[in-house]
Amino acid sequence: MSLLVIGTVALDSIKTPAGIQPDLLGGSAAHFAMGARLFQKVHLVAIVGQDFPQQHIHFLKQKEIDLTSLKVGDGKSFRWEGEYKKEDLNSALTLATELGVLIGFIPEVALHQKRIPNVFLANIDPDIQMGLLKMMHKPKLVGLDSMNLWINHKSKELKKLMTQVNLFVANDGEARSLTGEYNLVKAAKALRRMGPELIVVKKGEHGVLFFCDSFTFSFPAYPVEEVVDPTGAGDTFAGGLMGYLSRAGKINKTVLKKAVLYGTTLASFNVEGFGMSKTSPLTLTKANQRLKKLLAHISFS
Amino acid sequence: MSLLVIGTVALDSIKTPAGIQPDLLGGSAAHFAMGARLFQKVHLVAIVGQDFPQQHIHFLKQKEIDLTSLKVGDGKSFRWEGEYKKEDLNSALTLATELGVLIGFIPEVALHQKRIPNVFLANIDPDIQMGLLKMMHKPKLVGLDSMNLWINHKSKELKKLMTQVNLFVANDGEARSLTGEYNLVKAAKALRRMGPELIVVKKGEHGVLFFCDSFTFSFPAYPVEEVVDPTGAGDTFAGGLMGYLSRAGKINKTVLKKAVLYGTTLASFNVEGFGMSKTSPLTLTKANQRLKKLLAHISFS
Repeated sequence: MSLLVIGTVALDSIKTPAGIQPDLLGGSAAHFAMGARLFQKVHLVAIVGQDFPQQHIHFLKQKEIDLTSLKVGDGKSFRWEGEYKKEDLNSALTLATELGVLIGFIPEVALHQKRIPNVFLANIDPDIQMGLLKMMHKPKLVGLDSMNLWINHKSKELKKLMTQVNLFVANDGEARSLTGEYNLVKAAKALRRMGPELIVVKKGEHGVLFFCDSFTFSFPAYPVEEVVDPTGAGDTFAGGLMGYLSRAGKINKTVLKKAVLYGTTLASFNVEGFGMSKTSPLTLTKANQRLKKLLAHISFS
Repeated sequence: MSLLVIGTVALDSIKTPAGIQPDLLGGSAAHFAMGARLFQKVHLVAIVGQDFPQQHIHFLKQKEIDLTSLKVGDGKSFRWEGEYKKEDLNSALTLATELGVLIGFIPEVALHQKRIPNVFLANIDPDIQMGLLKMMHKPKLVGLDSMNLWINHKSKELKKLMTQVNLFVANDGEARSLTGEYNLVKAAKALRRMGPELIVVKKGEHGVLFFCDSFTFSFPAYPVEEVVDPTGAGDTFAGGLMGYLSRAGKINKTVLKKAVLYGTTLASFNVEGFGMSKTSPLTLTKANQRLKKLLAHISFS
C-alpha cells in the first residue's frame, strides 16, 4: 500500500531567532515525504530547476523516496525566503518567493505509479493538484492540504477539489478563512460540508482538532521547548498522518487517533531543527519513543 | 476542608456577537465561587457598593456561598464594561472600569474562617491578596491568579506574593509577559522558579498546560461550538480546579489531572451563556456528564 505525494520541492532560506540558513531542502512534498517514509514507500511528484543541488537529490534517494516522477525543468528551482519572529514562532513572514519552474508545471506520473492507492495533494496550486488527481486510477484514500494564497486566489478550484478528496488538512487560519467561521468546531463542520469526510485542523503549538461525522477528538501538541524552525511542520505532520493511515490500510477511530498522534510526534521533531535536520535522521523506533512520552503527557490515567 | 476565595464581585456589562447584557453579576471571586461550590463550601471575601442589587446577594446565598466576609462599602460597586469581537472571542476589549469601593478595600475575615486550609487569591490588587494571605492561619494550599494590569504595574508585589503560594494560574499572555518567555513550556518553568510548585497555563480555547517538578501534562479545551460570553471562564476554571483539589484533600498526578479536567469542564459551561447563566444551574452530576464526554474527546484509547 504505497503512497504518492505531489507538492513542492524547494530551496528555503530561513531566518529564525536561532539563526539564518540559506538554500535548505524544503517544500511541501519534501517535508511530507520525510515524515511519511517512516511508514511507507513514498513516491514523490514535483519539479525542480536546473540549479537544484545534486546533494539534495542524493539525500532524498538515500531516504528511499521514489523520485521517478521528480522532473528537472528548464529554469530555476522554486525558492522561498521566510522569517519567524521571536514573538510568534507559529507564523512565517514571507520575505520572497520565486516560483521558477513551478510556473507551467504539468505533473507527470509513471505508469506503475498510477495505481498507488494512497495519494496526498500537498500544498501547491490547486490546478496542479487536480491535474495529478485526474491521472490517478481510483485511489482509495486522497488527502489534501492548501494555503491562504490558494484560498484567496483559487477558491473555486480548491472547493471543486475538496469534493473529490477524503481527507482535508488545514491550519486554524486557513480553516477560518475558507469557511468564514471563527469557531474551529463550526469551521471543521463547514469544511466537512464542503466534501471531505475527514477533517484535521492543525493549531500549531496548540495541537490538533479532528472532525468526522461519527466523532471528534483533540490532542495537544508535544511540548517542545526550543522551537528552532517551524517550516514544514504542517507537511511533516501530514506525512506522519497519511503515512500511518496508508500503512494501517484501514480507517477507524483508533487508527485515526494514532495517525494524528504520529503526525504530532513527527512535527515536534521537525520544529526542533532547521529544515530536515531533525526529521531526516529519524527512525520509527525513535518516533515511537517520543510518541510514548506524548501519550504520557496527554493521557488522563 | 472548606475553601476561601478573595477577589472581586462586580457588575459586568458585556457586549458579544451574541448580544448585550448590562449589570450582570460578575467578578473573579464570584465566578470562582460558582465553579468551586460544586465541590466545597466556599467562603467569599470581597466588597460591593451600596448600589449592589439585593438579588445578586440573594442569588449567591441561594448557591450556599458563605458571605460572612462580603463587605458592603461606602460608595459604588466595582463595574467592568467589556466587549468581545467575532474575530477573537478569546480576548476582551475593556470599554470601561469603575473601581468604586475597590479603592482602599481592606479585606476582613471572620475568626472562624481564618483556619480554612484552602485559599484562592483570585484576580484583584496584589496588595489586597497579600493582606488577606497574612490574615490566614497556616493554609495548606494557596492558589493565585492575577492579570496583566498587575503584572505591568505591581510586578514587585506580585512576585513577592508568588513566593508564598503553592499554585499559580495564568493565561498564556500573562505567563509570557511575566517571564519574558514566548515558549509556554519555558514560561511555565520560569514561573516555577518564581516560587509556586504547581503551574497552570490556561490557553483559552486551546486548553491547558500543567507544569510541576515531577511531570507536565496538557489537555485541550472542551469543543464548545457556541461561545456566547467568555467573561469569567478563567475564574470558573480556577474554581473547578481549586474546588476539586480541596475536596480531594491531597495532591498527586491523578488528582491534579482530574482537577484540571474539572476546571476545563466548568469553563466550557461558563462560555456558553452570559454571566453565570450556565454555571449557576450546574450540578456535579451534570458536570460529570460533560467530563465524561471531554474524556472521550481527548483520550487515546
